[in-house]
Amino acid sequence: MQREIFANLSPLDHRYYLSDSKLGEELSKYLSEGALIHYELEVEVALVRVLAKRGLCSHEAAAQVEAAKEGITPLDVYREEEKTQHNIRALVNSLRERVDDEVKPYIHLAATSMDILDTANALRFKNAALQLVVPALVELEALLIEIARREKETVQIGRTHGQHAVPITFGFAMAEYVSRLGERIQLVEQTAKNLRGKFAGAVGAYNASSLFFSDPEIFEQEVLGELGLKPGGSSSQIVEPEFLLDHIHALVSTLGVLANMGDDFRHLQRTEIGEVGEYFAKEQVGSSTMPHKRNPWNFEHVKSLWKEFSPRIMTMYMDQISEHQRDLTNSASARFLVEIVAGLVLATKRLTKVIGRLAVDRERMLKNFNETRELIIAEPLYILLATAGHPDAHECVRKLTLRSEKEGIPLTKLVANSTELVPYLQKLSESQRRILSEPQEYLGAAVRKTETLCDHWERELNLAMR
Amino acid sequence: MQREIFANLSPLDHRYYLSDSKLGEELSKYLSEGALIHYELEVEVALVRVLAKRGLCSHEAAAQVEAAKEGITPLDVYREEEKTQHNIRALVNSLRERVDDEVKPYIHLAATSMDILDTANALRFKNAALQLVVPALVELEALLIEIARREKETVQIGRTHGQHAVPITFGFAMAEYVSRLGERIQLVEQTAKNLRGKFAGAVGAYNASSLFFSDPEIFEQEVLGELGLKPGGSSSQIVEPEFLLDHIHALVSTLGVLANMGDDFRHLQRTEIGEVGEYFAKEQVGSSTMPHKRNPWNFEHVKSLWKEFSPRIMTMYMDQISEHQRDLTNSASARFLVEIVAGLVLATKRLTKVIGRLAVDRERMLKNFNETRELIIAEPLYILLATAGHPDAHECVRKLTLRSEKEGIPLTKLVANSTELVPYLQKLSESQRRILSEPQEYLGAAVRKTETLCDHWERELNLAMR
Amino acid sequence: MQREIFANLSPLDHRYYLSDSKLGEELSKYLSEGALIHYELEVEVALVRVLAKRGLCSHEAAAQVEAAKEGITPLDVYREEEKTQHNIRALVNSLRERVDDEVKPYIHLAATSMDILDTANALRFKNAALQLVVPALVELEALLIEIARREKETVQIGRTHGQHAVPITFGFAMAEYVSRLGERIQLVEQTAKNLRGKFAGAVGAYNASSLFFSDPEIFEQEVLGELGLKPGGSSSQIVEPEFLLDHIHALVSTLGVLANMGDDFRHLQRTEIGEVGEYFAKEQVGSSTMPHKRNPWNFEHVKSLWKEFSPRIMTMYMDQISEHQRDLTNSASARFLVEIVAGLVLATKRLTKVIGRLAVDRERMLKNFNETRELIIAEPLYILLATAGHPDAHECVRKLTLRSEKEGIPLTKLVANSTELVPYLQKLSESQRRILSEPQEYLGAAVRKTETLCDHWERELNLAMR
Amino acid sequence: MQREIFANLSPLDHRYYLSDSKLGEELSKYLSEGALIHYELEVEVALVRVLAKRGLCSHEAAAQVEAAKEGITPLDVYREEEKTQHNIRALVNSLRERVDDEVKPYIHLAATSMDILDTANALRFKNAALQLVVPALVELEALLIEIARREKETVQIGRTHGQHAVPITFGFAMAEYVSRLGERIQLVEQTAKNLRGKFAGAVGAYNASSLFFSDPEIFEQEVLGELGLKPGGSSSQIVEPEFLLDHIHALVSTLGVLANMGDDFRHLQRTEIGEVGEYFAKEQVGSSTMPHKRNPWNFEHVKSLWKEFSPRIMTMYMDQISEHQRDLTNSASARFLVEIVAGLVLATKRLTKVIGRLAVDRERMLKNFNETRELIIAEPLYILLATAGHPDAHECVRKLTLRSEKEGIPLTKLVANSTELVPYLQKLSESQRRILSEPQEYLGAAVRKTETLCDHWERELNLAMR
Repeated sequence: MQREIFANLSPLDHRYYLSDSKLGEELSKYLSEGALIHYELEVEVALVRVLAKRGLCSHEAAAQVEAAKEGITPLDVYREEEKTQHNIRALVNSLRERVDDEVKPYIHLAATSMDILDTANALRFKNAALQLVVPALVELEALLIEIARREKETVQIGRTHGQHAVPITFGFAMAEYVSRLGERIQLVEQTAKNLRGKFAGAVGAYNASSLFFSDPEIFEQEVLGELGLKPGGSSSQIVEPEFLLDHIHALVSTLGVLANMGDDFRHLQRTEIGEVGEYFAKEQVGSSTMPHKRNPWNFEHVKSLWKEFSPRIMTMYMDQISEHQRDLTNSASARFLVEIVAGLVLATKRLTKVIGRLAVDRERMLKNFNETRELIIAEPLYILLATAGHPDAHECVRKLTLRSEKEGIPLTKLVANSTELVPYLQKLSESQRRILSEPQEYLGAAVRKTETLCDHWERELNLAMR
Repeated sequence: MQREIFANLSPLDHRYYLSDSKLGEELSKYLSEGALIHYELEVEVALVRVLAKRGLCSHEAAAQVEAAKEGITPLDVYREEEKTQHNIRALVNSLRERVDDEVKPYIHLAATSMDILDTANALRFKNAALQLVVPALVELEALLIEIARREKETVQIGRTHGQHAVPITFGFAMAEYVSRLGERIQLVEQTAKNLRGKFAGAVGAYNASSLFFSDPEIFEQEVLGELGLKPGGSSSQIVEPEFLLDHIHALVSTLGVLANMGDDFRHLQRTEIGEVGEYFAKEQVGSSTMPHKRNPWNFEHVKSLWKEFSPRIMTMYMDQISEHQRDLTNSASARFLVEIVAGLVLATKRLTKVIGRLAVDRERMLKNFNETRELIIAEPLYILLATAGHPDAHECVRKLTLRSEKEGIPLTKLVANSTELVPYLQKLSESQRRILSEPQEYLGAAVRKTETLCDHWERELNLAMR
Repeated sequence: MQREIFANLSPLDHRYYLSDSKLGEELSKYLSEGALIHYELEVEVALVRVLAKRGLCSHEAAAQVEAAKEGITPLDVYREEEKTQHNIRALVNSLRERVDDEVKPYIHLAATSMDILDTANALRFKNAALQLVVPALVELEALLIEIARREKETVQIGRTHGQHAVPITFGFAMAEYVSRLGERIQLVEQTAKNLRGKFAGAVGAYNASSLFFSDPEIFEQEVLGELGLKPGGSSSQIVEPEFLLDHIHALVSTLGVLANMGDDFRHLQRTEIGEVGEYFAKEQVGSSTMPHKRNPWNFEHVKSLWKEFSPRIMTMYMDQISEHQRDLTNSASARFLVEIVAGLVLATKRLTKVIGRLAVDRERMLKNFNETRELIIAEPLYILLATAGHPDAHECVRKLTLRSEKEGIPLTKLVANSTELVPYLQKLSESQRRILSEPQEYLGAAVRKTETLCDHWERELNLAMR
Repeated sequence: MQREIFANLSPLDHRYYLSDSKLGEELSKYLSEGALIHYELEVEVALVRVLAKRGLCSHEAAAQVEAAKEGITPLDVYREEEKTQHNIRALVNSLRERVDDEVKPYIHLAATSMDILDTANALRFKNAALQLVVPALVELEALLIEIARREKETVQIGRTHGQHAVPITFGFAMAEYVSRLGERIQLVEQTAKNLRGKFAGAVGAYNASSLFFSDPEIFEQEVLGELGLKPGGSSSQIVEPEFLLDHIHALVSTLGVLANMGDDFRHLQRTEIGEVGEYFAKEQVGSSTMPHKRNPWNFEHVKSLWKEFSPRIMTMYMDQISEHQRDLTNSASARFLVEIVAGLVLATKRLTKVIGRLAVDRERMLKNFNETRELIIAEPLYILLATAGHPDAHECVRKLTLRSEKEGIPLTKLVANSTELVPYLQKLSESQRRILSEPQEYLGAAVRKTETLCDHWERELNLAMR
């Protein structure tokens, strides 16, 4: 069943799908309705396969069901649903009508709808995470590591409150994201692997499966085992929502790290700062009316995806509440959760693309640094004076900087000329004194830390092997 | 450009579109990407039309642009965007290549992208509200009024904290929703009519249009006037976000009223209460495994749409913040706002459908009422005793009800037998005493208020005229 | 009952209270528990007063109740609540024990708890808005108008996407906030005046009051009229939540405007931009370790308050849902709503304080503007070329700017030297050509619009009269 | 510095503090401003202690600082802050003025404010979690286990969609919460232990500490080690926010489980269901006007706390974004995070109290179950018929239930009388047939699963040892 793409309501289904149609298809394999139905059929097949292993039906019957699955399209299921008004029953009927009569009873045997749906969802969220989300994040991570290493010695002024503080290197700033993103990748992976299915029946007490087995919990493990899943600890009609919630939290908090990165880059791209730039294609238009503009629109886009998708986690927090053995007030809301996956992947891919061709303006970084290089020594000066025995170093330096600002005399000069400070400066080591004249060397452990973080995350994420 | 519907990611674009394809098409007319491009073209045409009126270009030129518009498909614009990487420039180019060379300069003259986009969005949100949302809400409102009138005398126990309190009528309960929904309809309408466009250029100061006109603010009014819009009070590159935010607030808070209604109905449908029921089609399946179930799945669905769409207003609150004359961090997020409109319409239509065929079980209402009819008189008893001079009526009645519960003697009987109470009861009027033996008449102004509310909202919303 | 202030949990109750103890006391008058009890007592008194007017009890009785009110402290009520475990019953008992026996029955007659609580809340939110929030906002507004007028001709580069776009004036940028804030003030005022009380009893059907009056709706109007309030259209046990929700929306969206302003200012204060600065007291410390820092911490604080309080509106959206004639799942959440008022007032006062002593660096604004003055003419150049008949003006200018950037030749010079452009430039008016050499005059209607907006909002908000 | 408690704005600081003043004090020890200052002082002391160990200052100096700490009150620090306008500088000055001149320089040496603040916060959140939150949750968990075991065989109808589904036991329903809560306790504990401090200076590059040490990362580990903490992987001026975010997520999602429990109980307490009840004290008032009411106000309160505190996690998601080496837009918002801890503890304590004296009405559970016992067999009947070879069992049973409902004949009887079904029923085992006449035995593995879950979580959480 085809439809004009521009008639779709969701930007995911027209704009972002179109903007990279290969990615669109990739997302569809896990996140679309077609994908859901595919996964549900997988679960139904896993069930019959275990029934056969346990001797309730023949292996031939299981094979028939597996074959029947192949012939079913989403449209078949939807047509059947028009009659039954029940999506899983429609799925079951679609299978039933494709097998011999004696096989029919074993389809969906002892299962309730949510055994199928929740298990299918666990499986596709897990696969989407491990096959789509994590690889995309790892690609970005590898790129960040590459840049961090490359720029590990590029001096950049560190900024707090948007104000020049003390120096770092650009590579160090990137390495911080290497670390934060690395942590998130691990959480995404871990929470994905911890997603659970269920086969515990209508209220979670194995009522139906107990009609056939004295060990329904083992039976559940076997069915889910076919799919590489484990059961939730305490399903009611549904898997307890916390496993999926933890995973959504992992996704949304990863998006938060990307948004922070996007924000940093777009501010570094401000006209007055200009330390980085998005590459612009030769034919690309920056503004429909201001032909000279180079806007950080990709970084802005990443922030925007975060604003769209992060509040949606509230829905999942609300869906923790399901009355008694469950209510269905998550019927629609649970269907939209996959969009959060799509949002994260889009943001990741966009960031990877634009950072992959990022223009880093080292000269501008140095120029910006030099603007305040004199003031930068305020921190080491105050600290060194203090340890050299100055009774009120912080206050003394604060006043010196005010004077430097007011009179336009470099702080270094004021320090050098100050007879009051001589006795303290004499107590300093040579390397300490050197910092006071060469602020660009006041880098602390920035270079080493950059290397350490890059090494660590390469190892942790096993990047060499991927 | 066609695509398999089940490959779409958004439930709006597969499931909910399919479930009522006419509604899907209706939503598409305002909310899809095709619709946005259509509206943007409308704005470009309005601009040239005013340029012609003001004599900058010929009316013939304006007519050419208008004709050019007709030939443009969304796909044309998207193909052009692949080159320019800028959606509005692509739109402009699509128009330009369809007109004579001397007409080209007047297309998009003095406009910035956001003049077009923000104005187009104001227009489509306004039209969607007035032509789609409000009519759907009014249809539901009319239905609620009908039921409220019909059931205005149907005694139902009022419930607070899920506990039997004092009686109302079922019509009265419905009339409360008539009123709350009526208020929201007015707010939706009012905020929709208050949506604003802009034609103030790249930073809102009419820089470009001032090159041609000494009265650019009037020029802006004329262009927007062509489209039935007014300008925002203080646009920067964008219309100030509060107009749209107020409208989104109206939509989301309307959804909240619907969700409350859905919750009420699904609880009234609990097995133990059973006062209302969703009609079930003959072939419809309630549960894939429990054939006897009749689930309030439509009411649950309404609540679920609320859980999905109400948190999304956070995105719009975040989008209030746009740095300086604007940043583009609402690029993606603003595109998703239309989905909130879709969510509200879906919830409204669903509620209308299920309430339209609601089964009201008056006998069950009476039966439930009778369960606690004895206790209900506790309230009037305490109040009447108090005014009759009983020194500690509330405490006295509380103890009586405890005793009634413990000993299983009806409260009315305890009252009748209590010699202590005789002097107070004698002071009551006959109608007051009657309430103490006929709790179902302790209805207050329920019936009259039902009528008043229905009359009021029929008038306010001009229902007779629609 | 006293407690050590630093033992409090809420920053509102230690830090922000302390930071301006007069403001703390002001907030307390409306927002504290003491205030709530005070307002509840007001409502109880209004009830008895109307009972007296209607002749149910004597005026002397009403006077006794009014007198009793004066003697009651919050602690009295809380001590009583320990016994009854019910806050309104405790309030009632506190009044009762202070009046003669024959007066007792008329206290709280025919009222349910929520008649008192919801009405008291409507009243204090209304008073807080009109007496505290709006005056604070108006003070800020007046300050913004003053600065906008003063700086109406101060040229500043307009920034979109953080990039230099085309010029505005600093006053114009301020005037935009005058307008946005003005609109919000009106909404805060309007929604505050629209807050409603109720006197419709336990389930909203006037069951109890109908025992005494044939016109309980009029009786309700009279009681609320004593307090300057109107009844909600369709109360159940509670006033329908939308009136308060609309007000909270007004407050939160006002906070959004302030946060946007705070963001703008803190970015303008970046070291590399430096167009504005927070005044620093002589003894004030910018950083505990970097004595040279001047951080925009007040603007940051405003943004931070927005991050804390804006998500809390979700609570109120959730509280729209109350089952049947009400449940009590808003018992705690509704109590916290007052904090949103506090958050807004804090942000407003802080912004007023810091903007009131804002350092505007006009030289730096001009210097920043001059950095890109050459590129700024790209927009008017392209537009003017287009109307002068250039067949592809946007593309032509885009290429010129790229060349200018690459070869370091000012765009004005490239234009002047371009023989290709001569025929088009000749068609321009003198004033149009002037813009191409004097970009700082490309201000559009910035100055006039600044004046218009300031005039408009002075009139609208009646600033002269306040 | 004392203040009238009823003048406080936050319900946490008047109402909930008062309602259990011991709990209030307990919360204060971790969550108040006094607590924060106390923890900050601890961190300053840890720093000097390590400086002494490393030989930079004498152990005597460290002892002086430690002694100085004891004498400082929050008020001292606040008075100093009035001068410096900087909270950490005020803290440092308070220490400095209490030690000898030669000790002064070692206070706060090489530290930036956030080294102190972030570390102090990590420590107090960790301690609050491990010493306050987890013990409270464990107490509730133990209670749930006790009830689950006690009621493991109490038959209760399982409810899905608020409709009777198939039977469980009340103990089984409780055991599900044992499991969900157990999982959350582990997450709270794990994320608390994973909270991190920092000692990496103004921009995270160890600039200042590198002036003194060649191994500043090790120095950082030593200082934090004094406090039982580890450093974050990649601090900038601040610890990367994800550690705390994960912990807040753990807290909020735990609150979600409690809210679900609260919802379940309040619905089970509905007048028409009445399976559980909150214990009411003899003097307690249910309603100010309806003396007969017994409201589930404690369960409602738990839900309400969830509505108040769960949306606040949005603030923390927003606080993930901090520009460059940090901005201060989390200045206020981060201060409020402790309230989420308070909210969770309040909800836990309340739930523990009310569940601890929960009235379970087993007779009513049975009565409710019996209302639909006939229909309950629909599920096993359909499944067993299917496996016995019935070609269309689900449809057949669906029609039988409709007939049963319509004609008022028990489903068991219809089954027994149906000649059509005989051949299928004969194929069933005796135990299978028994279920069809004894629906209360259709409990699946409910009893065993209850035991398994209780055993598991007792072991996992080491309950015997606590």
